[in-house]
Amino acid sequence: MSNVKPARDRTPGRRRTETISVPFGDLDELLGYKLRRAQRAVFQDFAASMERHDITPGHLGLLLQVLRNPDISQTALAGRLGIERATLGPIIDRFEQRGLIRRRQAENDRRSYALCVSAQGKRFLQTLWDDLEIHERRIAADLSAAERASLLSLLDRIALTDQPQGSD
Amino acid sequence: MSNVKPARDRTPGRRRTETISVPFGDLDELLGYKLRRAQRAVFQDFAASMERHDITPGHLGLLLQVLRNPDISQTALAGRLGIERATLGPIIDRFEQRGLIRRRQAENDRRSYALCVSAQGKRFLQTLWDDLEIHERRIAADLSAAERASLLSLLDRIALTDQPQGSD
Repeated sequence: MSNVKPARDRTPGRRRTETISVPFGDLDELLGYKLRRAQRAVFQDFAASMERHDITPGHLGLLLQVLRNPDISQTALAGRLGIERATLGPIIDRFEQRGLIRRRQAENDRRSYALCVSAQGKRFLQTLWDDLEIHERRIAADLSAAERASLLSLLDRIALTDQPQGSD
Repeated sequence: MSNVKPARDRTPGRRRTETISVPFGDLDELLGYKLRRAQRAVFQDFAASMERHDITPGHLGLLLQVLRNPDISQTALAGRLGIERATLGPIIDRFEQRGLIRRRQAENDRRSYALCVSAQGKRFLQTLWDDLEIHERRIAADLSAAERASLLSLLDRIALTDQPQGSD
């Protein structure tokens, strides 16, 4: 790998980096790249922790939304999650089959369904949450409490200016 | 949403959270969740910035690997990226068709190909990098230089303890 030509094409990137000094081609100084790398490592650990619970991050967010909003309608839930009703239906079906969500006709609108997390669903979430806390401790094992708090706060301030945030 | 039952099932989670105090069901205190949310927002902005360049983050990483390692073999590149040679082949084909990568027979092994970023590929990367810098400034617009540096460093320390990091 030593036959690298003089880096004629690699320097111009420096010209206009007034605020961020990123040598052209060096991903290691890019916030987006670091974020993606950290997210990927954390997600691998999350997936391993959640394997026995058989649930994705998005579906966990959905279940927690229902837990926090008993009797929420499918329409309202789809709105909160920013997804189509048609997409939500099969996901709720699956949760119902697993006995984690109960679906019943809304009292004030017979065409609409009200959703609740079942007692079994609550036990499921409790067991899952225990694993989630272990995962959380593991991914931040190298940080002090103050550093962890600082990271949470800095992450909150990334790209929040003109981006609507997902709702799960 | 006011007919919430007394939160009988929501309290037990507090019992054993000695190190991290996460009220059961509150994603907002989870580092994994914040990371995912920030990553998603940043990725949306990245995707919008990169739309005219028609490239994914992974493929950009690949192209930069080839740029930094002229004459790298497909086998060595697959190894660095942690992907199968069979997966890499069609990606390189696509880059070759776009005129961004040149593939030629290796001098020391006629069965193997050596890869280079073409002059056109270098111009492509330069234009792309300009957009990437604008994207970087936008996502960190709310952070001081010190805060940005601190975030980069904290992200590096997440989950690096027992996770091999991806190589692109």
